[in-house]
Amino acid sequence: MKTSLTGIKPTATPHLGNYLGAIRPALKLAERFHTFYFIADYHALTTVRDPADMQRYVYDVAATWIAAGLDPDKTVLFRQSAVPEVFELAWVLGCLINTGQLERGHAYKDFLAKNEGHKPNAGVTYYPVLMAADILLYDTDVVPIGKDQKQHLELTRDVAERVNHVFGGGDPILVVPEAIIGDAPLVPGLDGEKMSKSRGNAIPLFAPAKKLRKTIMRIETGSEPLEAPKDPESSTVWQLCRQLTPAVADEMADKLRAGGYGWGHAKQDFFEALDHELGPMRETYQELRADEEQLDLFLASGAERARNRARNTMMRVREATGIRRPLSDLRRTVEIKK
Amino acid sequence: MKTSLTGIKPTATPHLGNYLGAIRPALKLAERFHTFYFIADYHALTTVRDPADMQRYVYDVAATWIAAGLDPDKTVLFRQSAVPEVFELAWVLGCLINTGQLERGHAYKDFLAKNEGHKPNAGVTYYPVLMAADILLYDTDVVPIGKDQKQHLELTRDVAERVNHVFGGGDPILVVPEAIIGDAPLVPGLDGEKMSKSRGNAIPLFAPAKKLRKTIMRIETGSEPLEAPKDPESSTVWQLCRQLTPAVADEMADKLRAGGYGWGHAKQDFFEALDHELGPMRETYQELRADEEQLDLFLASGAERARNRARNTMMRVREATGIRRPLSDLRRTVEIKK
Repeated sequence: MKTSLTGIKPTATPHLGNYLGAIRPALKLAERFHTFYFIADYHALTTVRDPADMQRYVYDVAATWIAAGLDPDKTVLFRQSAVPEVFELAWVLGCLINTGQLERGHAYKDFLAKNEGHKPNAGVTYYPVLMAADILLYDTDVVPIGKDQKQHLELTRDVAERVNHVFGGGDPILVVPEAIIGDAPLVPGLDGEKMSKSRGNAIPLFAPAKKLRKTIMRIETGSEPLEAPKDPESSTVWQLCRQLTPAVADEMADKLRAGGYGWGHAKQDFFEALDHELGPMRETYQELRADEEQLDLFLASGAERARNRARNTMMRVREATGIRRPLSDLRRTVEIKK
Repeated sequence: MKTSLTGIKPTATPHLGNYLGAIRPALKLAERFHTFYFIADYHALTTVRDPADMQRYVYDVAATWIAAGLDPDKTVLFRQSAVPEVFELAWVLGCLINTGQLERGHAYKDFLAKNEGHKPNAGVTYYPVLMAADILLYDTDVVPIGKDQKQHLELTRDVAERVNHVFGGGDPILVVPEAIIGDAPLVPGLDGEKMSKSRGNAIPLFAPAKKLRKTIMRIETGSEPLEAPKDPESSTVWQLCRQLTPAVADEMADKLRAGGYGWGHAKQDFFEALDHELGPMRETYQELRADEEQLDLFLASGAERARNRARNTMMRVREATGIRRPLSDLRRTVEIKK
C-alpha cells in the first residue's frame, strides 16, 4: 500500500471551514493509502510565539482530527517535533537547493508583497526546505495538495532527484513523491466570504448545539419574503449545506426554488443536518480534549512509528553522504565487541 | 570553569599552516576553559560531495588534533552530526533571525561576488543560523574567533538575546556567548604566500622525516651567496621558524645577519626544529589513523557528553516555546504510570 502524507498546521482551533475543506477530505485518504498525518508544531513557530497557544492548538487539532474519524491505530498521527530527524534531513536538502529557488517561493514572495519589501524571518524563507524534508523523511509516495502547493512539491521532487543523483550514483536514496492535486472546496463563512478565523465569519466546529444553531441563524441571506421562489446556488446557507451533504442540499434546493420556504427554514434544515454529523463528534472531541494525556499517548504511538521510518531514511542519507551513523548505533557495536 | 567552543571544518587533511595557525592555539584553550571541539562534518556538506572524502577528512582531523595534544578525556571532541539536536535548535533560531541579516553575511556576499551574482546553495545562506546553533546548544561562554568571524558571533549573540526576550520573559534560556578575538597568524607556504592546500604550497604535517626535509628544502629563498649577511624577517623560512619556535628563530636570525650561513643551513635548522616537534606527534598520528575504531570511540565519548548538554538546552527551548518534550521523556512518564 502506498504512503500518503498530510501536514496539519496548528495555528488556531479548527472551524467548520477546516472540517469541510481539509479534514474530511484528508481523512478519506485512509481508505486508499497508508496515511501519515503530522501536526506541524515547529512550522507554526514561524508565527506562534506563545507557548500556551502552541500547546493548546496542538491538542485542539489532534482531538479534532480523531473526533472527525482519524483512527490513531490504523493511521500515523504525530507531532512534527517528535521526529527531530526532519531538521537534519532539511540541512542535507538545503545543501542541494539553490537560494534562488527559495526566493522564487510563493510564500516568500507573498510576504514581500504584503510587507513593502521587508524580508520575513529565515524560518519563512527556509520553510520549503523543511516541507521537502517533512515529505521525504517518510518515504511518502503521494501528497494530496492544492494548486497553490504545486511549486513546493516540484521543489521537493527536484531535490529528491538531486540527492539520488549526487549521492546515490543511480541508487534511489529518497522516494520521489507524486502529487494528488485536488483543490479544497472554498467554504464560505457567515458573510459569504471564505471562512476564516481572522475574518470573524467562522462557524465553530464543536460548539454546543444551542450555540451552533444561534451561529447558523446569523448566516447572511437575501431578504425575499417567505412565499418567493429563491435561488439556492447564490446563497451561502445552501452552499454550505451542499458541501456538508448533497442529499439534504438537493431537497433544500427544490424547496427554495418552489417558494413558501424561507431562509430561516433553510438555516434550520442546515443546522439539523450539521448537528446530525457533528453531534457525535462533538462528544468524542470533548472527551478527548479533556484528556491531554490520552492525546499524548496517541501522538506518541504515531511518533514512534513515524520515527522508525525516519531513522531508516536518515541511515540511507548518512551512508550516502559519508556522515557517520548516529552514536546509538555505534554504542551497540561497541557493546557487542566487549 | 567557563566553556569554550571551537569548530573544525573537515574539508582537507590538515597541513603545517593549520597546525601553527589554528590547531596549536586552539589547544592552548584547554588550559583555561572547559573546551568543546566539534568536527563540522554536516557543515562540510555544503562543499564535500564524496562520502569517502567526508569520512577520511573527519578521521584525519580527529587523529591530527589528538596527536597534536588534544586530550579526549579532559576535553570534549565530537562530530557535529552526532548531536542532531543542533538542527532543531537552528530551526528555532531561524524563526527569530531576519532573512535580511543572512543576506548581509560575509560568506553569502563573498559567494555572490565570486560567482557573478549567482546564488549559493541554501546551506551556505543558512549557515550562520547553524553556526549560531552550534554555539548556543552547548551553553558556550566564550568563542575564540578571528576578526572575519565577528559578524557571525554578533548574530549569535543577537539571536540568543532575542530567544531570551521573546520566549524567556526575562529568564535566560540560552547563554549569550562572548568572543575572544585573536587573529590567527598568517602562516606562509613554500612560495611565501598564505599556506593553503589548493595553492599547492603546503607543508604536510605528518609526512615521514625524509619527505618532510625534501619539502622544506623547496621553500623559496633569496639567491645571496653563502658568506653574505641576510635579512631574516623577509624570508619565509625564518617566518615559519619563528612561528614554530621563537628560540630557534632568534638564533637563526643572528646567524643569517652575521653571514657565512646559507639558506640551505637555515632550512636544515628549521627542519630539525620542526621534526623535533612533529616527530612524536607523527607516530601518534599514524597509530591513531590506522585505528578508526579507536577514533570512533573517542568521538563517541565526546558526543555523549556534548549531547547531554544539548538535550538540556533543547529541553529549556521546548519548554519555553511550547513544543512538547521529546518522546523518550514521555515514554518514561508513561512507564512510571503503568
